[in-house]
Amino acid sequence: MEALQKLIVTKGRILDGDILKVDSFLNHQIDTAFLPEIGKEFKRRFADCEVNKILTIEASGIAIGCATSQFFNYCPVVFAKKGNARNIGNDTYHVTEHSYTRNADITVSVSRQYLSKDDKVLILDDFLANGEALNALISIARQAGCQIAGCGIVIEKAYQQGGDRIREQGIRVESLARIKSMSTEGGIEFCQ
Amino acid sequence: MEALQKLIVTKGRILDGDILKVDSFLNHQIDTAFLPEIGKEFKRRFADCEVNKILTIEASGIAIGCATSQFFNYCPVVFAKKGNARNIGNDTYHVTEHSYTRNADITVSVSRQYLSKDDKVLILDDFLANGEALNALISIARQAGCQIAGCGIVIEKAYQQGGDRIREQGIRVESLARIKSMSTEGGIEFCQ
Repeated sequence: MEALQKLIVTKGRILDGDILKVDSFLNHQIDTAFLPEIGKEFKRRFADCEVNKILTIEASGIAIGCATSQFFNYCPVVFAKKGNARNIGNDTYHVTEHSYTRNADITVSVSRQYLSKDDKVLILDDFLANGEALNALISIARQAGCQIAGCGIVIEKAYQQGGDRIREQGIRVESLARIKSMSTEGGIEFCQ
Repeated sequence: MEALQKLIVTKGRILDGDILKVDSFLNHQIDTAFLPEIGKEFKRRFADCEVNKILTIEASGIAIGCATSQFFNYCPVVFAKKGNARNIGNDTYHVTEHSYTRNADITVSVSRQYLSKDDKVLILDDFLANGEALNALISIARQAGCQIAGCGIVIEKAYQQGGDRIREQGIRVESLARIKSMSTEGGIEFCQ
């Protein structure tokens, strides 16, 4: 997705070699004029899939999920919560993953009310690197017995293993920008 | 806003007398077909205001901010982060408020890059009760020297003091549903 690659190159910042900050348009300040382009592209890639629910994770996934939902008949967006299962009751699907970003274990949960075996979910997130968040969402969808239409990612660090490990399970993962390599000096190279 | 009141009555759940759960359409599962109605109503109420940025707070504020932005020329949405200022660097506007919901002090922060004295902000959030979150956002907007166009709230517990205390400061607060009283037995009564 060329427009996205351009945004990443012009507005992204590389910190400490391996951290890509896109908080000027995606993660902290949101470019709401551009977001629908992301949704439209997910629809194009998953046009052959039946989807009746979008599953994502707070916080940055919410904007992406909502912008994409309009292209899937305004299906509901369910966002998983991070941290302890505060405020959503005990009746949850949940999983604990180690977060390398936070260097801590983190529990991801979704109320059982909002996912079921009748759901055909498209799982969305902003970043895919080691795959902790995406693995957690896949585990939750499986606990609920959902059919997983696939996973849509805005930016994948393709030089890390998370994406490949999930594809090896037979799950379709579509990433709108796939980064082949990245460094403070050399900038960003995308996969073709 | 009648459609919202109807949604609250039909889909909301009252727990322990004072907790209103609207996680079937706003807080956990999001009704993306309804969200634009919320945005449209904020636009109607703040039609006389110049707004070039929406300021909100993770997580539930993000969907509301994005749905409203389209009615304000797709202005950027900045969402404040809760907790420690992970991942957004040290150069932040921030404030620590006591959260009654979590029974803990919580730091709310926004990177200095994304708010300035040139900004005319509309501050949005899902709930207003004691006003901790809204006070934090107002404080951050003031630290940045922003002009505050006003505050838009989806659901205000008008029987608590947060809203009135903010209005007393001369800040315009528009709440789309104002709850006068609420109980497990008696249900919900809205302000007229």
